[in-house]
Amino acid sequence: MAKRKLRGGMVGGGVGAFIGPVHRMAATLDGEAEFVAGAFSRDAAKSRKSGEELGLDPSRVYPTYQVMAEKEAKLPADQRIDFVSIVVPNNGHFPASKLFLEAGINVICDKPMTTTLADARTLQKIVRKSGKVFALTHNYTGYPMVKQARHMVSTGKLGKINKVVVEYPQGWMSGMIDNPGNSIGMWRMDPEIAGGSCCMGDLGTHAENLVRYITGLEIDEVCAELTAFVKGNRLEDDGNVLVRYKGGARGILYASQISAGEENCLSIRVYGTKMGLEWRQEDPNYLIAKNPDGTQTRFSKGNNNLCKDAQDAARLIWGHPDGYIEAFANIYREAFKGIRAVNAGKKPPACDHPTADDGLVGVAFIDALLASSKSKSKWTRMKT
Amino acid sequence: MAKRKLRGGMVGGGVGAFIGPVHRMAATLDGEAEFVAGAFSRDAAKSRKSGEELGLDPSRVYPTYQVMAEKEAKLPADQRIDFVSIVVPNNGHFPASKLFLEAGINVICDKPMTTTLADARTLQKIVRKSGKVFALTHNYTGYPMVKQARHMVSTGKLGKINKVVVEYPQGWMSGMIDNPGNSIGMWRMDPEIAGGSCCMGDLGTHAENLVRYITGLEIDEVCAELTAFVKGNRLEDDGNVLVRYKGGARGILYASQISAGEENCLSIRVYGTKMGLEWRQEDPNYLIAKNPDGTQTRFSKGNNNLCKDAQDAARLIWGHPDGYIEAFANIYREAFKGIRAVNAGKKPPACDHPTADDGLVGVAFIDALLASSKSKSKWTRMKT
Amino acid sequence: MAKRKLRGGMVGGGVGAFIGPVHRMAATLDGEAEFVAGAFSRDAAKSRKSGEELGLDPSRVYPTYQVMAEKEAKLPADQRIDFVSIVVPNNGHFPASKLFLEAGINVICDKPMTTTLADARTLQKIVRKSGKVFALTHNYTGYPMVKQARHMVSTGKLGKINKVVVEYPQGWMSGMIDNPGNSIGMWRMDPEIAGGSCCMGDLGTHAENLVRYITGLEIDEVCAELTAFVKGNRLEDDGNVLVRYKGGARGILYASQISAGEENCLSIRVYGTKMGLEWRQEDPNYLIAKNPDGTQTRFSKGNNNLCKDAQDAARLIWGHPDGYIEAFANIYREAFKGIRAVNAGKKPPACDHPTADDGLVGVAFIDALLASSKSKSKWTRMKT
Amino acid sequence: MAKRKLRGGMVGGGVGAFIGPVHRMAATLDGEAEFVAGAFSRDAAKSRKSGEELGLDPSRVYPTYQVMAEKEAKLPADQRIDFVSIVVPNNGHFPASKLFLEAGINVICDKPMTTTLADARTLQKIVRKSGKVFALTHNYTGYPMVKQARHMVSTGKLGKINKVVVEYPQGWMSGMIDNPGNSIGMWRMDPEIAGGSCCMGDLGTHAENLVRYITGLEIDEVCAELTAFVKGNRLEDDGNVLVRYKGGARGILYASQISAGEENCLSIRVYGTKMGLEWRQEDPNYLIAKNPDGTQTRFSKGNNNLCKDAQDAARLIWGHPDGYIEAFANIYREAFKGIRAVNAGKKPPACDHPTADDGLVGVAFIDALLASSKSKSKWTRMKT
Repeated sequence: MAKRKLRGGMVGGGVGAFIGPVHRMAATLDGEAEFVAGAFSRDAAKSRKSGEELGLDPSRVYPTYQVMAEKEAKLPADQRIDFVSIVVPNNGHFPASKLFLEAGINVICDKPMTTTLADARTLQKIVRKSGKVFALTHNYTGYPMVKQARHMVSTGKLGKINKVVVEYPQGWMSGMIDNPGNSIGMWRMDPEIAGGSCCMGDLGTHAENLVRYITGLEIDEVCAELTAFVKGNRLEDDGNVLVRYKGGARGILYASQISAGEENCLSIRVYGTKMGLEWRQEDPNYLIAKNPDGTQTRFSKGNNNLCKDAQDAARLIWGHPDGYIEAFANIYREAFKGIRAVNAGKKPPACDHPTADDGLVGVAFIDALLASSKSKSKWTRMKT
Repeated sequence: MAKRKLRGGMVGGGVGAFIGPVHRMAATLDGEAEFVAGAFSRDAAKSRKSGEELGLDPSRVYPTYQVMAEKEAKLPADQRIDFVSIVVPNNGHFPASKLFLEAGINVICDKPMTTTLADARTLQKIVRKSGKVFALTHNYTGYPMVKQARHMVSTGKLGKINKVVVEYPQGWMSGMIDNPGNSIGMWRMDPEIAGGSCCMGDLGTHAENLVRYITGLEIDEVCAELTAFVKGNRLEDDGNVLVRYKGGARGILYASQISAGEENCLSIRVYGTKMGLEWRQEDPNYLIAKNPDGTQTRFSKGNNNLCKDAQDAARLIWGHPDGYIEAFANIYREAFKGIRAVNAGKKPPACDHPTADDGLVGVAFIDALLASSKSKSKWTRMKT
Repeated sequence: MAKRKLRGGMVGGGVGAFIGPVHRMAATLDGEAEFVAGAFSRDAAKSRKSGEELGLDPSRVYPTYQVMAEKEAKLPADQRIDFVSIVVPNNGHFPASKLFLEAGINVICDKPMTTTLADARTLQKIVRKSGKVFALTHNYTGYPMVKQARHMVSTGKLGKINKVVVEYPQGWMSGMIDNPGNSIGMWRMDPEIAGGSCCMGDLGTHAENLVRYITGLEIDEVCAELTAFVKGNRLEDDGNVLVRYKGGARGILYASQISAGEENCLSIRVYGTKMGLEWRQEDPNYLIAKNPDGTQTRFSKGNNNLCKDAQDAARLIWGHPDGYIEAFANIYREAFKGIRAVNAGKKPPACDHPTADDGLVGVAFIDALLASSKSKSKWTRMKT
Repeated sequence: MAKRKLRGGMVGGGVGAFIGPVHRMAATLDGEAEFVAGAFSRDAAKSRKSGEELGLDPSRVYPTYQVMAEKEAKLPADQRIDFVSIVVPNNGHFPASKLFLEAGINVICDKPMTTTLADARTLQKIVRKSGKVFALTHNYTGYPMVKQARHMVSTGKLGKINKVVVEYPQGWMSGMIDNPGNSIGMWRMDPEIAGGSCCMGDLGTHAENLVRYITGLEIDEVCAELTAFVKGNRLEDDGNVLVRYKGGARGILYASQISAGEENCLSIRVYGTKMGLEWRQEDPNYLIAKNPDGTQTRFSKGNNNLCKDAQDAARLIWGHPDGYIEAFANIYREAFKGIRAVNAGKKPPACDHPTADDGLVGVAFIDALLASSKSKSKWTRMKT
């Protein structure tokens, strides 16, 4: 029998947004789900128009997500949405997630999970209590070669990990530095909306998550310098961090929005006693293993020599590039496994997608960075 | 108003096939279409099972495509499929395309278009007469940076084109060369199914199409050597071609299935009097312009400095890699534009997807290669 | 008239050493100099044997550099060496340089210049007083494309520099981490010989020098964590540094000897308000400019579009790779310009090679790193 | 005992020439030789001036190479040159080589060896009879990683070779195509001086030599199209060749001087039944092995895991790039081994440098290309 399509709703992500369409393409790529409901904008008219353009039944397009949660929860089980994708700015993540989880609806949520550590702790508890799936879209862990990297670390190919360098430079704000009149006025720079961090919340948390996903290393202490280069920026647009991982590994982690000419250049290098690894998001279908004898081995997506997770995560065979959407879709695919289990009356199983636990670590990471930065880069212990 | 989803059918591409899921993901990526019918296999039971797994209404899953064409044509307009995707081996392309076109149904078809030049000419006429859309999935032309390359040539950035080097090596058959017992027995090597060519029909036609798409150059004469290295191969698994383009440009075109260790390494280099260009399918989001002053300019997908076609073809902004599926989806998106026009009673407009005219050139190209090869690599004029 | 060949002597660098032959090849590459004297080892017999293998007149092969300085100084001007290359371990740099300078002989010396800041200050004064040339072999600044990078910064192409990331990972010690019995016993790890730092003295100073050469930025404060991963290592084999440059730029600088599988991967990325730049020592003939519009421009060695310094520093035209020796030879070539001027009775002119001033900064940099590290990574002001 | 420095003479290569300084740097890089004599130009005054700038004894600077050969031959053995480097345009190679060999002087000569096949055959015989060393500077075979490639083929790592793609595009003439007034008037385009071929003599012979050096494959037949794109060019500036090697391998070989934006992009890909290999001259310190399982292994210069020849050919360890000069110097180093043996009264040993036998093959290759091209690309057997 065919699996029935899961029904999804969306909060935010109206037409014109960047991340809304990404979620829609990712969630539906495998034909496993369709979006049937949404509250696409705080502006009810805009929301209606977005629903219309997406071909939704107008009765399922809501003026606010609060109304949506209430109404959807009351629908019969065979009509009600199975999950909601929350793609609003940061400060909406917590209340919307809370509401839908408490309404009994599974949640896929953008990162960072919340804007405060207290909220993150609360949400983690709500998720645990809810018996529902909560997936956080640290989408870069969906790439097949990231899974291969994790596999190589966990099976001991690298020996003991001693050093990790993770970088996430973007450059799109660099042109604004010289143009103070060019008030960017984006929500990312508004502490009321973004929380206490811009660059590190947006990019740095992806970097932290990627390190932890691949290596399993947990941060002990951070020493951070956060800088706002763009005049008028109320939050940092660049952050450099020294990291001490539990167990003795040392690391560098940086993220930037003012690195002129960089696009979305997340990369990671992991060095163990036996081998080094390198992966770059902008060339995602390859993983470089650096061998101590001076050779490098390039693994490539879609081959049988990869671990099972990497093979399963590839939508196409060797030489046929998978991209960002396919990786993002892998987060959804794993969440859908969990949702189907929950629908079948089971507890949410452990699936290969970021969870509220990861979300809490991410927010704790931001918190530690902010504390270190405020203390003039004192080493600061990370506390979840 | 939302555009209604177009209804698609599929011939071939049952579960387990490589190209079937690619078509399904590509056709539905933008939420513009859904598959509602299919004849997925010559084996009616397999077809049924595939339909089931895809969640199709069993009444729309047919034992043969002939039945499918007949039954679908009789359905009311608001149920009938808008298009059929034909993804069977080569010898099925012509009869299936003919049947559906004559039944008034738009066709998206895999390449090469037919197995004989006569059939290609016939099909071109049928398409013209039908008033329907016929799109051939030379999918590599769907990549944004290929469109940028075409733009740079057509706007004169390269000056007059003098040389084109296009290569399409794969290596998956290389291990078979030494293992004669390893009879591959694939349809690609069966002249009854594949037509007169294996490697050049499968890969070489993509290369020819890519050159023509980017440069507009038309082949005048070819001088080809086709070789079957794998013991037992009845058709060539490697082909090297010298090309004379109309207007004086010269070229090299080769394709291979025995180039050990290569994956899907289609690449093109175009040299004009003012600039050279290079694009590689395995790193598709970049285009290299080689300037005579010794600099190279790397253009990358998703930026505002690209031509409109390249911008429109990108699903994501800079630094967020688009892959094979997204490029493939661009072929469908253009075909859908045409289909919506036809549905609205118009003549099929000129859209940016390969057509029956391209298909005819591709088959003529194969024909010329075979003739040249048989004559011990005599220069042979290509005739459509 | 042909320029006469300058006569060189060497301290250290006997047969079997790594850096001795590099100096010999670099100094003689252009036919401007020849080595005629040396004290190649602390072991007089080894020194003699090295001199023999190099074809030197035995009367010019000395048992110690002290004897060498004394004897060479007494030779008639038309026989005496014009310069000495000091290629012994770190702790020999200061006394040997002092001795030869005071004997009136120009010095080319390996880095770091001295093992203590006090010595560095003293040597800087000795150099100034001597009227002789003192060149420090921060050889990486000899690469043509490094000169092009400097030119692009100094002519404002990048706008204001905001961020610099410089990395220098090597991996040759990584295999030793797990093998404590494998006591490496190298001089680099002996504080008596190497000074207070291993990795940062050996590699980190190159990184610091490269940043300063290209950008002109001066370090204000550093925040460093230095780690000895290899059991038994008395000095650090890995160092991560946050940097505050005067004027507001921020940076990351790291060096490592335990980054498994890395060879000699010095690289630098400089980000200004208008452009980013990237250069990698392992691919030295190219410089990447990252433009805010999403294009990257690759400049390559040996082309007319480069600045004069970059053109002059290239020994071969485009497409003919210059390597490490050629870059090293550029340091010598500039030193030779100075030596010829001094020989002609002039004051040492400003030539394009690292000087005692650079050497002092390098030692001050190490000093600041050690101080910061000892204080648990407190921000520490760098003082020359 | 130190080896005495070999004494060299040079024919051609006066100051301002490109290749003269390359030979001088390459020959003297290891301190094994020095140039003491020369006939640097057909213009005696220019020759004198070049000798002066090089610091040569005026009595050893000759107005013509004929005078040079005569005079040098009469010098006492301990003054006479040990070898002559012939770096004049093509038509000078034969008479000068002949003259010096017959005067008992070893010869290092630029390629192509002669301008006619008859001369090549004659010179091969003269060399054999002379008992002297004759080395042809197909310098690209001097790169360490080319030697590693040869080793991997010869030890069976690739299995049976089936396909070879070798490319040598340059672009420096591309700008001339549109400027007919821009008469280039270079000797390379003058059949009286260059012989029957420009591009293939200059670049194509390197490509042929590289294939043979790495694979040992010998050409059976060629099918060539040679084109002069630049208006006024009397010889071809672009050539595309299909190749049949003895034993069944097939190949593509092309060279070009009109490939806009290419610098000196010699590259080779070799495909066997078990593995593929790729090497690029512009990135010469790496060799890529393409494995059938979808991994690629990058070997890099200066590591212990390479074959002995590759290790010996590296002047510097891993991560310290060797360049064009170092590779060129390896040709000289091997020739010097032979010359020292000859000086010691032995027969010229088999050393790892191209010989007159290679030179003859190169000229025969050009001859076959010209014959094939004239016959409208008929397959033409290559005859030495």
